[in-house]
Amino acid sequence: MSDLETSLRHLKRGSDELLVEAELVEKLKTGRPLRVKAGFDPTAPDLHLGHTVLINKLRHFQELGHHVLFLIGDFTGMIGDPSGKNATRPPLSREQVLENAQTYREQVFKILDPEKTEVCFNSSWFEKLGAAGMIQLAAHHTVARMLERDDFARRHANNQPIAIHEFLYPLCQGYDSVALRADVELGGTDQKFNLLVGRELQKDYGLPPQCVMTVPLLEGLDGVNKMSKSLGNYIGIYEPPQEIFGKLMSLSDTLMWRYYDLLSFRGEAEIAGFRREVEAGRNPRDVKVLLAQEIVARFHDQAAAEKALAEFEARFRQGILPDEMPEFRLKADSAAGLVITQALKLGGLTPSTSDAMRMIAQGGVKADGEKVCDKALVLPVGAVVVLQIGKRRFARVTVVA
Amino acid sequence: MSDLETSLRHLKRGSDELLVEAELVEKLKTGRPLRVKAGFDPTAPDLHLGHTVLINKLRHFQELGHHVLFLIGDFTGMIGDPSGKNATRPPLSREQVLENAQTYREQVFKILDPEKTEVCFNSSWFEKLGAAGMIQLAAHHTVARMLERDDFARRHANNQPIAIHEFLYPLCQGYDSVALRADVELGGTDQKFNLLVGRELQKDYGLPPQCVMTVPLLEGLDGVNKMSKSLGNYIGIYEPPQEIFGKLMSLSDTLMWRYYDLLSFRGEAEIAGFRREVEAGRNPRDVKVLLAQEIVARFHDQAAAEKALAEFEARFRQGILPDEMPEFRLKADSAAGLVITQALKLGGLTPSTSDAMRMIAQGGVKADGEKVCDKALVLPVGAVVVLQIGKRRFARVTVVA
Repeated sequence: MSDLETSLRHLKRGSDELLVEAELVEKLKTGRPLRVKAGFDPTAPDLHLGHTVLINKLRHFQELGHHVLFLIGDFTGMIGDPSGKNATRPPLSREQVLENAQTYREQVFKILDPEKTEVCFNSSWFEKLGAAGMIQLAAHHTVARMLERDDFARRHANNQPIAIHEFLYPLCQGYDSVALRADVELGGTDQKFNLLVGRELQKDYGLPPQCVMTVPLLEGLDGVNKMSKSLGNYIGIYEPPQEIFGKLMSLSDTLMWRYYDLLSFRGEAEIAGFRREVEAGRNPRDVKVLLAQEIVARFHDQAAAEKALAEFEARFRQGILPDEMPEFRLKADSAAGLVITQALKLGGLTPSTSDAMRMIAQGGVKADGEKVCDKALVLPVGAVVVLQIGKRRFARVTVVA
Repeated sequence: MSDLETSLRHLKRGSDELLVEAELVEKLKTGRPLRVKAGFDPTAPDLHLGHTVLINKLRHFQELGHHVLFLIGDFTGMIGDPSGKNATRPPLSREQVLENAQTYREQVFKILDPEKTEVCFNSSWFEKLGAAGMIQLAAHHTVARMLERDDFARRHANNQPIAIHEFLYPLCQGYDSVALRADVELGGTDQKFNLLVGRELQKDYGLPPQCVMTVPLLEGLDGVNKMSKSLGNYIGIYEPPQEIFGKLMSLSDTLMWRYYDLLSFRGEAEIAGFRREVEAGRNPRDVKVLLAQEIVARFHDQAAAEKALAEFEARFRQGILPDEMPEFRLKADSAAGLVITQALKLGGLTPSTSDAMRMIAQGGVKADGEKVCDKALVLPVGAVVVLQIGKRRFARVTVVA
């Protein structure tokens, strides 16, 4: 394989779609560092592993010498929700934006090279644009083409209102690419339409169009829904080493391979070797431990990874945690999740919820190895928890909405 | 009739629609001067009688003591056509806007009372609004409701592109009503949708909603199309007295009554009297002369009106212009209009176009009483012209597209 082919293969690994590959090849051939853009929400700098799929991909570009434009969309963040319908999205102050940006830096520089990363704020160009500039920007796209976006098309067809400012946001995102002169923009698969708007706008403004690369959305611990804080099925990168380690060890074997593909920095050949070994009879648990250690070391350090493994083994092996146990997918009984007493009953560990209460009161119930004291404890939707009664009775429970 | 009923009747005379009448009554009852808004295009201060239907209605409000907000839409005028498709709409400079505003003042103060008129520019609030404010404004309306506007609905259904900034313009116009705290907004019937957007926006911004009054579009000299400079069927308020007088005298009798209703400042009772007299046998020509004199006096003065009448009578009566003559509606043979030689032939005045050329060369052809020297003369679309060969042969020709 030529160097170019090797580079391209590295960049494409684990990505969903690349538009247009031939154009990216041409850009790579120039040998200059490419300007690789990704946009981030200014409101939520509390990253989980789902976010890092994209950040890892930015890192792949950096490994080949390219320049990352880490764009914080503070302009719309400072507007808040102009429809006033979403009370949970109050406008951010400039101070909050800067504070959040600092938190972002701390988090993403665990993955990215600060020397090759430029943190940008789109307020710097939108505040200059003015109302007139916004109208001129809006002239670059048509209503019909905007209505082709999946979610707009569906809402329009179902007579659900679309406020006109919602049409302006993809244009703002696209204008960011114009202002930044991006060569490549990365985003989740759900961002494809918006990324392509940027490509079109760049052409309109007389710039070479950016290539667009989408990365898949990472499934959460439940293996079904995308990882999300509100679903509770996430691994936060700021969680303690034992938490990250334990949650990764709770993955199903299938999901483990998905996480390897999207999160591990190990080479493809090495991961393929693991797969062959497991197929040949190696305990997948051993391979899962390697993944859990790699991820803990990334967000903490190698020592923390060793310690998390030791503690995990102490807690579960010495607690005689079986390699196999009954698995249950249980439906939440409220918006918050499922109350522990119901989980114990439905997981077959107690004959009734009143038995469950009694067992909790006696100190005989553990969740993920820790004693449960609160009989009103709610297991959140998305949670995957090993419940234990006494020394020998276990069930792995996944709470679903 | 109570004073209030008299006022309301005066305000409604010749209007097309009033929304909501009961609300206007409440506003009138307060006794305070109402803020009556009308918006004008900053690019074309060359007014014709069609524009004055609206300005006359503003005058009616002033006659009752109300305050006119004469709004010049310079903000969008200074943007020009952001799609770049309309090369005839280059962006205006601030100097041009101010110059045009001065021309407007000279023209409209022939009708309006300067003491009760405030000339406003919407750039004064839009330049403060910023890109963020424009997004917030766009949040106040939905795509579906905007697509209900007749022209948008038709274009969307026919797959003709609608640029997104076109959705922002009605919102800008509506925001003008918010900024001006308008009590009433006047506009042509084609503006109804936009006027109602202003009403809705005022409610959203916590203001009492404006009443909306539409006035009909005045037909041009052809009696079919709306009066428009580009159709050539107009009477400009800056035209010389004889031109205005002559064009008004060329109106059909039916159209004369329409012009009386929409343009005359005579009372309704007086006009009704004229109608009865004409029905009883009075020559409509005499009544047309009164209208022509009134309009000339308005835009020039009474002396000019007298002089125009005298000249008109000298030219036509002494040229033995018959009261009745054959009338032809002739189709233009090019985008510009109809060439005179064709008009002579089709109007039955010459047997062929070569005869027509010969008659012109001999100096035997007149158009509206003036000798025609150019055999390539084109009568524009919308023109109503009395053609004459020799002393006795006449035809009145209307050129249609």
